[in-house]
This record gives sequence, C-alpha cells and structure tokens, in this order.
Amino acid sequence: MYNYKLMISYDGTHYSGWQVQPNGISIQGKIQEALQKILKHEVLVIGSGRTDAGVHALGQVAHFKVAEPLDLYRLLASLNGILPRDIRIKRIEPAALEFHAQHSAIGKTYHYHLHLDYVQDPFQRLYSWHVRAKVDLNLLHEASAFFPGTHDFTSFANEAHLGCAAYDPVRKLKRLDIVPEDGGVCLQFEGEGFLYKMVRNIVGTMIEVASGKRKAACIPEIFAAKDRGQAGQSAPPQGLFLMRVDYP
Amino acid sequence: MYNYKLMISYDGTHYSGWQVQPNGISIQGKIQEALQKILKHEVLVIGSGRTDAGVHALGQVAHFKVAEPLDLYRLLASLNGILPRDIRIKRIEPAALEFHAQHSAIGKTYHYHLHLDYVQDPFQRLYSWHVRAKVDLNLLHEASAFFPGTHDFTSFANEAHLGCAAYDPVRKLKRLDIVPEDGGVCLQFEGEGFLYKMVRNIVGTMIEVASGKRKAACIPEIFAAKDRGQAGQSAPPQGLFLMRVDYP
Repeated sequence: MYNYKLMISYDGTHYSGWQVQPNGISIQGKIQEALQKILKHEVLVIGSGRTDAGVHALGQVAHFKVAEPLDLYRLLASLNGILPRDIRIKRIEPAALEFHAQHSAIGKTYHYHLHLDYVQDPFQRLYSWHVRAKVDLNLLHEASAFFPGTHDFTSFANEAHLGCAAYDPVRKLKRLDIVPEDGGVCLQFEGEGFLYKMVRNIVGTMIEVASGKRKAACIPEIFAAKDRGQAGQSAPPQGLFLMRVDYP
Repeated sequence: MYNYKLMISYDGTHYSGWQVQPNGISIQGKIQEALQKILKHEVLVIGSGRTDAGVHALGQVAHFKVAEPLDLYRLLASLNGILPRDIRIKRIEPAALEFHAQHSAIGKTYHYHLHLDYVQDPFQRLYSWHVRAKVDLNLLHEASAFFPGTHDFTSFANEAHLGCAAYDPVRKLKRLDIVPEDGGVCLQFEGEGFLYKMVRNIVGTMIEVASGKRKAACIPEIFAAKDRGQAGQSAPPQGLFLMRVDYP
C-alpha cells in the first residue's frame, strides 16, 4: 500500500464545494475522476475538510492510497492535464501510511477578504465580500479581540454534528489578524480546528459590530448563549480562502 | 451641451471587447444600454481606444455628451446598479466640451502579466499568460531594451489601418519595465500611443527571445523589415490590462 499527499489550489466559483455531492460538481469528484482516468481504477481522495460552494483554496491538502507505487512527476503533469484549469495540483508527495489529510491535521489557516471601497473592484467580485455598509476599522479591531483563545464556539457553528454525542464544540483560535490590503482588509484566522461555517459566522458578526448594528461588548454574551441564532449572519462564501493545513 | 468623463474598470473575460460589434457583447454596448435605460434616450459612449476580447482594464476612460446636466452622484450609483458586476464605473467627472477620450489622450499605460510557475495558479488563469516554455529573465531584459524610443512599429502592428494613406506607424514607447510579481513578472508599457495589437505582438516576440527561439539581436532587423510576418506570435489577450490613459 502506498499513500500520497496532494497540495491543491482551486477557484471554488464554479463548484458546489470540495465534497462529492449527489447534485453538483465537486472538487473532490473532479480529482477522483482524473485519478481514475489515469490509474484505471476508482480512488478515494480524502481532503483535510470540506469547503463550501464558492469557497476557494490555495493550500487544500488531501491524500489517497493505491496498491502500486506511482511516478509522481508524470502523475502531476497528467492530473493537471486532465483537470479543469480552476483546479490545480501544486505538489504530490509520498506520505507515511498512517497519514490522513483530515485526522492528522493539527492546524489550519483561513483568510477572509473584505472589500471596502465604495465602488467594487470587478476583479475582486468573486474573491471578496463587498461590504456596502460603512465599516469602522476600529470597531472591527475591537470585535476581533474577543475571538482568539479557547472557547465553546457553538454560537458560531452551523448544525452539522450538533446532535452527535461525541461532538466537541470547543476550539482554540490561535490568531485573528486584520491585515490591510488593496481596497480593504484581509482577516487571517489560524486555529487548531474550525467548526462548520465558523469563520464565515465570526466574520458576519464582526461586520455587524463594525457597521454599528451591535456592540462588540455583546460578543461574550453570544458565546455564553451557545445558540447559533444569537450571532450575526454568515459572511458570503466567495471571500473565504483555505490557505494552509498544518501537520506534525 | 454637457460632456462627461467616465473612469471604467472591467474584467474582459466574458466580452467580445470594448467596441460595439454586430455579433457579441461589448463593454461599450453594455454602458450605452445602461445610460439609455437611465436617460431614456440613446447615448454614444466614446472610449480612449478599443480593447480586444479577453483584455481587461483598470483605467479605461470614455466620454459622452448630453443636452441636460446630470446629477453625477446618482448617475454613478444607477449605472453601477444596472451594469453587470464585471464592469464598474469608478468615477464620473464633468469634462470640457472639447474633451475627447480618444483624440485628447496623450499617453497610455498597459501592463502585461506573465505567469512563469511550472504549475499555473488557478486564480491567474484569466489574468495572465502562463508560459509553458522555460523563460530566461536575462534574455527577457535583453529583448526589452530594443523597444523603448521612437520607432516605426509596423512589424509589431496588425492590419487595421495599414492601407490608409494617413496612417502613421511611428510611435514613441517611453518605458518598458519588467517588474517581478508573485509567480512571474509584469511587463509595463508606457507610451504616447499604441498601434493595434502592438503590446501583445511585442510580448510574443520578447517571449520567443526569452525562451531561446530567436536572438534578441534580431529585433532591429524585425523593425527594419516593416513586416508583421517577421515578428513573433501575438501574446494571448488575458494577460493584458489597460491601466491608465493620460490627458493634458
């Protein structure tokens, strides 16, 4: 048995997300189809986690196992030859047999791009959230200070596993930086793990604070409520990029 | 009579170019339609020059004349409300009656993005030329040195007005800089004016030199031949951006 690790970039605009779904074209599905075409048998490609429709990745990681060793240089060229140009395999590496793209991950970095100019940049329309409300950057910083650290993020997570007994909603957010960039800011999230829609729900809540809809001081109450209904609306998907997945 | 100047950005991916054409959707056409919807009469929008299908603009300039004065703040919001999100009016200003977006222009700046990584960045696929051949940056610099200055650029221009008696193929290229950027380089052209397809034909020729297909020393012979057939292939449109148009 051989295990291989893929480093993947994709423009998520035209996909229903990472994960294979009954209706819709997924990135995982496209990569599995391409591998099957090359290897002449079915292959299961397991990603570090799913990304939703419209969400992008510069550093998604996945693994797949095969019985025979592969010529990775040829495989990289063949895969990129078959895949559509909005999905690119950046690198393929041999991995230890026990490496698992999802379970072995010890950290992830997400960027969320906010576009704040009055007139939207047409080149950012698919890669950022154009916030029409007036955003106060001081309030955005104030809001951001409440999130780093270890918290029960239930109020910032959408359904998914909420019913499940083994579900642990406590996560450690190591860093939430606000970095200025052309036309807006980039919110950089680094954590040990993220709940479903957690980044977009935090961003949506931060924007409600920064646009004066609610006070930053409410955020501890939102955490305490453990109720998704208390936090802000989810930020739209196209501003979100999975930048990096860390392994030991 | 009132004359207004428009500053326009567009992602040219889904258009047949700036200029209204019998078949195909043009940027000029989209803006004229939006103005007509607002002003309830036909309006002719004259750009600084045409851009081809797939070519982008961050700083296209155009003008249009109307009989009655307009509320520019409202017009900007209405236009951007009607236009598709890949065309944005960045600014509208009153202009002198004699201002003409094309004839008053005294200079233009174009950028051409070359993407040189082995694996293409999916986010650059529509905004750069992914050159698969090995590019020697020293040779690229060597080739670039032959273009600035005042030359007869006939060998680097496609048809258009070649038959016309009044046609003057002499142009002054003030600057051709090679600026490193993430994944490649940006070729920056600044000139008093450009012939049809001149930038893309120069870039195509420079890449033939930089990839070892021909010597930089041939470039003076290409100029001297005054024959489009002597220069290299035209570089693809999606790497080209009209950045700025200068007026006195």
